[in-house]
Amino acid sequence: MTAPTTPPKTAPAAPLVVSADDLVALVSRIFAAAGLAEEAATTVADGLVEADLEGQPSHGVMLVDMYVDRLRAGSLSTAATATVVSDRGPCVVLDAGNAFGHLTGPQSIDIAVARARKQGVGIVAVRHGFHFGTARRYALRAVDQGCIGITMCNTRPLMPAPGGAERLVGNNPVAIAVPTDDAVPLVLDMATSEAAMGKIRLAEKASQPIPATWAVQADGSPTTDARQAIAGMLLPAAGPKGFGLALMIDLFCGLLSGGASGDRVRPLYGDPGIPYDCSHLFMAIDVGHFCELSWFRAQAAAAANRIRDGKRAPGVAELFTPGEPEWRARQNANRTIRLDGAVARSLIKVAEDLHISAAPLRAIADDPSTEKHYAKT
Amino acid sequence: MTAPTTPPKTAPAAPLVVSADDLVALVSRIFAAAGLAEEAATTVADGLVEADLEGQPSHGVMLVDMYVDRLRAGSLSTAATATVVSDRGPCVVLDAGNAFGHLTGPQSIDIAVARARKQGVGIVAVRHGFHFGTARRYALRAVDQGCIGITMCNTRPLMPAPGGAERLVGNNPVAIAVPTDDAVPLVLDMATSEAAMGKIRLAEKASQPIPATWAVQADGSPTTDARQAIAGMLLPAAGPKGFGLALMIDLFCGLLSGGASGDRVRPLYGDPGIPYDCSHLFMAIDVGHFCELSWFRAQAAAAANRIRDGKRAPGVAELFTPGEPEWRARQNANRTIRLDGAVARSLIKVAEDLHISAAPLRAIADDPSTEKHYAKT
Repeated sequence: MTAPTTPPKTAPAAPLVVSADDLVALVSRIFAAAGLAEEAATTVADGLVEADLEGQPSHGVMLVDMYVDRLRAGSLSTAATATVVSDRGPCVVLDAGNAFGHLTGPQSIDIAVARARKQGVGIVAVRHGFHFGTARRYALRAVDQGCIGITMCNTRPLMPAPGGAERLVGNNPVAIAVPTDDAVPLVLDMATSEAAMGKIRLAEKASQPIPATWAVQADGSPTTDARQAIAGMLLPAAGPKGFGLALMIDLFCGLLSGGASGDRVRPLYGDPGIPYDCSHLFMAIDVGHFCELSWFRAQAAAAANRIRDGKRAPGVAELFTPGEPEWRARQNANRTIRLDGAVARSLIKVAEDLHISAAPLRAIADDPSTEKHYAKT
Repeated sequence: MTAPTTPPKTAPAAPLVVSADDLVALVSRIFAAAGLAEEAATTVADGLVEADLEGQPSHGVMLVDMYVDRLRAGSLSTAATATVVSDRGPCVVLDAGNAFGHLTGPQSIDIAVARARKQGVGIVAVRHGFHFGTARRYALRAVDQGCIGITMCNTRPLMPAPGGAERLVGNNPVAIAVPTDDAVPLVLDMATSEAAMGKIRLAEKASQPIPATWAVQADGSPTTDARQAIAGMLLPAAGPKGFGLALMIDLFCGLLSGGASGDRVRPLYGDPGIPYDCSHLFMAIDVGHFCELSWFRAQAAAAANRIRDGKRAPGVAELFTPGEPEWRARQNANRTIRLDGAVARSLIKVAEDLHISAAPLRAIADDPSTEKHYAKT
């Protein structure tokens, strides 16, 4: 049965609905074939697919082909762990040696948590790091152990100083998670730019103007034109505030680790032979060293409920706590992912280049009885 | 000699130029007369006058009459120190007992620094706190000891959640300072609102529209009308980002201290008999526990210079590092302050109510040969 509105299965924009478990299995096989140990390959795959489930495809399996390019070119290591550079009480410096942030990230936050459980606080700074996916994952891992979790990393320069006309700091993200009794994790995960480049690209496609706070032209002049913005630079969130935060994150990550900061961090999508070389910082604060964890959790849950139950502006249907949109996306996903057609094809290509089966993507794409898996967007 | 453009010396808006040292002396006498020990009175006066010198009059001597009202009404204590509630390694909880934040702030950050110098990190959470002036002062005090300094506090709810129509979190400030070789201190000091209420009041006076990102009407609807904004609510910086940060600061300060968060923090300018009851958090990270302090300082200075020497957008004369505007204001002030006429009169009144001499304000205001001290704004 073929409905006339069903798009052709090879159309570039047609998303495929795939099971998360099948996708984890495929991506695991890809990374294992590219040289990672089996467990490490699964950990990386889990992290990527989780981002897709949370409605964050920019941190999802769309990264696989770039990761594999970098593994092949040697700028990304197949090692599963970072090595200890220095270890002084709650303060630890690690060298990730260009290993996957998806692997050194859990290692780093677990060290921070172990120190925090014993000494109240743990801070782990990581040099020669690589992309670690969403920062929220590591912050939430600390929460599972009764700790406040804080994660940061730097990126190459993307944003000018307020009034500037050249890229000086990355849109360096920070995630902060706190323990709560609420069913929904309470976690802030923010880049320090006012808006994501993806939103500007959407405005360009829709021929819509963008707010003047989102970006500037290449010479630093204001713009509300998405095309000029794409050729220009992202602006920091709330101007000098986001710029100052981004700078502090760059210095925390790059300097405390003795690693790279500023333009010594390279483009993620640049030459795959040149290490990305970002720096990370992980902090855990054991709540029990300050107050009763159960009281803290109850109070945090009450604060979340005050937000959710708060009065709403006209036309607003619901209010969300920080981290709730990602949690809801995950609940609604029901372990299935609507994969962008171009991403699906890139995965098939990577898999076949590595002489492994691209099932289940191929099966879905090839089987004429599976039109139901297609959806229009 | 009286120039015809000189405004009458009793005009409400005429600012007085006074020496910072004279102002510290006067304000010290005021607080001593109101019950503070002499050294404590001078410390509070120094903190207030420093804010005026740094171009932050909202944190300056304009607060004196409210502070004195609260001392008289008993909601602000004359005690000079906070007491220790708990002390576990790098984690300390203090009870300020409604003493001046200007007094318990230095005490708190000094404890955090002492722990950091010994153990790498120190975190001091303070319950039953009072207004501490600018957050940057305490963060910079840690920098003087080779530490990164971080200061936060909560305020009563002022901002809605994105899409909300009631005040849920304060515009809770955070300051972050890092050691640097640069002559200019490198310090971010930001409230988590998009704009300060003072800027909205200026727009109202000038009958100018405000950006839609600054505030909403009382029912949560968007507005660019300053009057509607003043009757409404401040918006968080960059929407959900500033809201999330403000919430996390509220929970860090209020919960780790076992103190007040959310609407349990009272209005600063509310009933002077009811304690303000904010909570503070101070953190120090000893740089030497991670890397060479001299290297960190040199790298931080290089980052500052990259900002200052960066390419500028058309029409932009200079680029500033975080904290540089306040530093410049202070350099330019040359230990003199242009005091708002209404603030000067409130100080004279407070002083005379306490039966102490209001010199030098009275002298300047009364002496016809001192018109040169007046300036139009």
